[in-house]
Amino acid sequence: MSARTDKMKVGMFIRPAGHHIASWRHPEGHADAGANFARMIEIAQTAERGLLDMVFCADTHSVFTAHEQGLHRLHYVAWIEPFTMLSALASYTKNIGLVCTASTSFEQPYTVARKFASLDLVSGGRSGWNVVTSGNATEALNFSNEPHKPKDERYRRGKEFVEIVQALWDSWDDDAFIRDKDACLFFDPQKMHMLNHHGEYFDVRGPLNVPRSPQGQPVLVQAGASDDGRELAAQTAEVVFTAHATIERAKAFYSDLKGRMARYGRDPDHLKIMPGLSITVGRTHAEAVEKQEQLDELLHPDVGVSLLSTRMGHDLTGFPLDGPLPDLPPNKVIGSRSDDAIAMARSKNMTIRQLYQWFARQRGHAGFVGTVTEVVDQMETWFKEEACDGFNFLAPVFPIGLNDFVDMVVPELQRRGLYRTAYEGPTLRDILGLPVPQSRYARDSAAREKATVSA
Amino acid sequence: MSARTDKMKVGMFIRPAGHHIASWRHPEGHADAGANFARMIEIAQTAERGLLDMVFCADTHSVFTAHEQGLHRLHYVAWIEPFTMLSALASYTKNIGLVCTASTSFEQPYTVARKFASLDLVSGGRSGWNVVTSGNATEALNFSNEPHKPKDERYRRGKEFVEIVQALWDSWDDDAFIRDKDACLFFDPQKMHMLNHHGEYFDVRGPLNVPRSPQGQPVLVQAGASDDGRELAAQTAEVVFTAHATIERAKAFYSDLKGRMARYGRDPDHLKIMPGLSITVGRTHAEAVEKQEQLDELLHPDVGVSLLSTRMGHDLTGFPLDGPLPDLPPNKVIGSRSDDAIAMARSKNMTIRQLYQWFARQRGHAGFVGTVTEVVDQMETWFKEEACDGFNFLAPVFPIGLNDFVDMVVPELQRRGLYRTAYEGPTLRDILGLPVPQSRYARDSAAREKATVSA
Repeated sequence: MSARTDKMKVGMFIRPAGHHIASWRHPEGHADAGANFARMIEIAQTAERGLLDMVFCADTHSVFTAHEQGLHRLHYVAWIEPFTMLSALASYTKNIGLVCTASTSFEQPYTVARKFASLDLVSGGRSGWNVVTSGNATEALNFSNEPHKPKDERYRRGKEFVEIVQALWDSWDDDAFIRDKDACLFFDPQKMHMLNHHGEYFDVRGPLNVPRSPQGQPVLVQAGASDDGRELAAQTAEVVFTAHATIERAKAFYSDLKGRMARYGRDPDHLKIMPGLSITVGRTHAEAVEKQEQLDELLHPDVGVSLLSTRMGHDLTGFPLDGPLPDLPPNKVIGSRSDDAIAMARSKNMTIRQLYQWFARQRGHAGFVGTVTEVVDQMETWFKEEACDGFNFLAPVFPIGLNDFVDMVVPELQRRGLYRTAYEGPTLRDILGLPVPQSRYARDSAAREKATVSA
Repeated sequence: MSARTDKMKVGMFIRPAGHHIASWRHPEGHADAGANFARMIEIAQTAERGLLDMVFCADTHSVFTAHEQGLHRLHYVAWIEPFTMLSALASYTKNIGLVCTASTSFEQPYTVARKFASLDLVSGGRSGWNVVTSGNATEALNFSNEPHKPKDERYRRGKEFVEIVQALWDSWDDDAFIRDKDACLFFDPQKMHMLNHHGEYFDVRGPLNVPRSPQGQPVLVQAGASDDGRELAAQTAEVVFTAHATIERAKAFYSDLKGRMARYGRDPDHLKIMPGLSITVGRTHAEAVEKQEQLDELLHPDVGVSLLSTRMGHDLTGFPLDGPLPDLPPNKVIGSRSDDAIAMARSKNMTIRQLYQWFARQRGHAGFVGTVTEVVDQMETWFKEEACDGFNFLAPVFPIGLNDFVDMVVPELQRRGLYRTAYEGPTLRDILGLPVPQSRYARDSAAREKATVSA
């Protein structure tokens, strides 16, 4: 193993009652979590007690996915809109990062730039934007049928969108606001920058009507695993949330993505790769397995088949649950995770039931089940063998899965020197170990000065 | 005077350093308020100590208005995006309403429905949406030149937008979420309602992916004063924020708007009309006047001329400051407040300087200056003579203007029985005295049942 001296980064993925689809049915699961903000305060504060790097909220713009059977048995259908929730959570927390999704398909760059800069201001520098370029057809039905664009077009639009947002965040130099009452100079006009962007998809004049925020640039998070997605991440992302069921896949992804950064002149340390990780710990291995089985049994077959159908892009209703996965047409929409899952199901002769249980638990992510030692051994191996820079923790059930992690796993990680024992600073960049990007206008001006001196 | 027994409603209009354009230059003004969230917490908590009904944040989507001279002398150019700020303020307050603007020109109904329902959930029922159908040409430049539509089209779009948002808020019946763990029923499918809206401007399938919020329907606020605006308000608004420099204009507006409600079958008490009101109190009348003059003198002429030019829709640069207002072409964009101001300037022979000072102080709103008794006398007259149901308080300078209001004006209002001595309940509807609208689906079903019984 390598002698890594940096610390493991750990995010907490928020789903109302937990990451396991059946979490809301667990006797200790909070079935009302999607409507009861107090539950979210509790888990955010627990995560902060465990010194986690960030809470991470994914988002969708629809009640439906593609397959609607068993919808009324699901707790993900409706919950508090994540950005509003994080803004409110900012006031109940002090150090933990606040990251959530905004879609480049259904929002405008000026609006997205404003809101993440503002979250940075109200949280003292803890804001991060998870850029999502995709969407699904059912979401488009809530947005006046904004057609679902081909993937390459979505990425081109997404790339332009991100460039605009980052440029808008540089609208004001760090020292633009003088606020000189006597001279009646609120800001220095030389330190305000117009954008005047005219691109393929957007025209945005700028400047942003939000002041420069503590981080300057909120942290940029991405999740794309396709070739286009990796390239965009190599160029712009600072955190990548990814899904790998095995360490081999994770290592291949890690070295590929870090390797791509050189062509953009970026230091590989300035991008943190954090695969999702479901953890179930017990006092014994058997107890942990039993905990997992208890949840699996709470999964209704309608929900399982519907989930799997959505993931496979193909309706599996009617196929025998304890029979094999039928032949499927290649999936055009969802992407890499499903292909991996199909390969796994074939190679392990998994039944439909076994595959949907696996998806309900992990949805393509890694899952470690066992004693604290067993779990932390695996985490350490992934980290030291450069399969990741840490994990996005998927608690099977809130709050108990998170409590187990904070009270049992974190102390062992700390004992082994793999994990922080105190927050490194007040901002998300401080705790992730990411540099504060210099404003593009300061860089340009420095470059001009250097050119003049050399000439 | 009428024997009104209801209580006066009072909102607090938020501008970073204060409502007076020169507020940031005041020796006690907080010039950094736009970037310093702690200032906002302080004023929201003070407003709550004073039992005010709501904080009210207007919003724009641009640094610029039409005229840019003196821009660097203005503190309104950049501040925390209001919705994010209110979501964060929800956690620092307990009773006060949280109202802010969202534009029907630059947002999507599904997004707006989600965010105000979510604010309602994180605040325990204190959310209100100030519907703005207008916008200005400089805002459009930040939104890929979304063309500035003619007023009638903006209103048609706005009306459809509001209908969709309100319908989405009824997506789930009050008792839709059963969360029965044993039966594996998270919600009752009969109590989820698809929208399937196909209109002139929008197609939205629904349902909303946010649970039913404490108020069911967040409070709907509007500010339109034109004929179209009044009609839309009579049909849908529950609070109207308006601007009247004189009691005569306010009374005419009040009786006109309340009179229009009958044709929509609405009770006039279910709409609260709250004109903006700038208040400057002193221990003596002279002291109050002196306070106001001190602020007026802090106004830079560049800012004054620029402000007035924007309001008049005409560049006034170069005209003598101490000369009269020149002849102007009729204003097509800004609307009714400017016409009133021009009439006032002509009738009182006001100079350009006097008129821009008036605008900087009040921007078309009423302004009461004097001792507590003098100010409260006028407030009482407006209230009892049905010029209003209360006011949206415009503090000339934060925090001192608000402190004066809470510590000096509120106790006198209470002494006269005009104002609450405790909050009436936990939600904004409770404190405004507005009913909780029954879900449209429950109404439909009740109507069907009645028809069946009669048949």
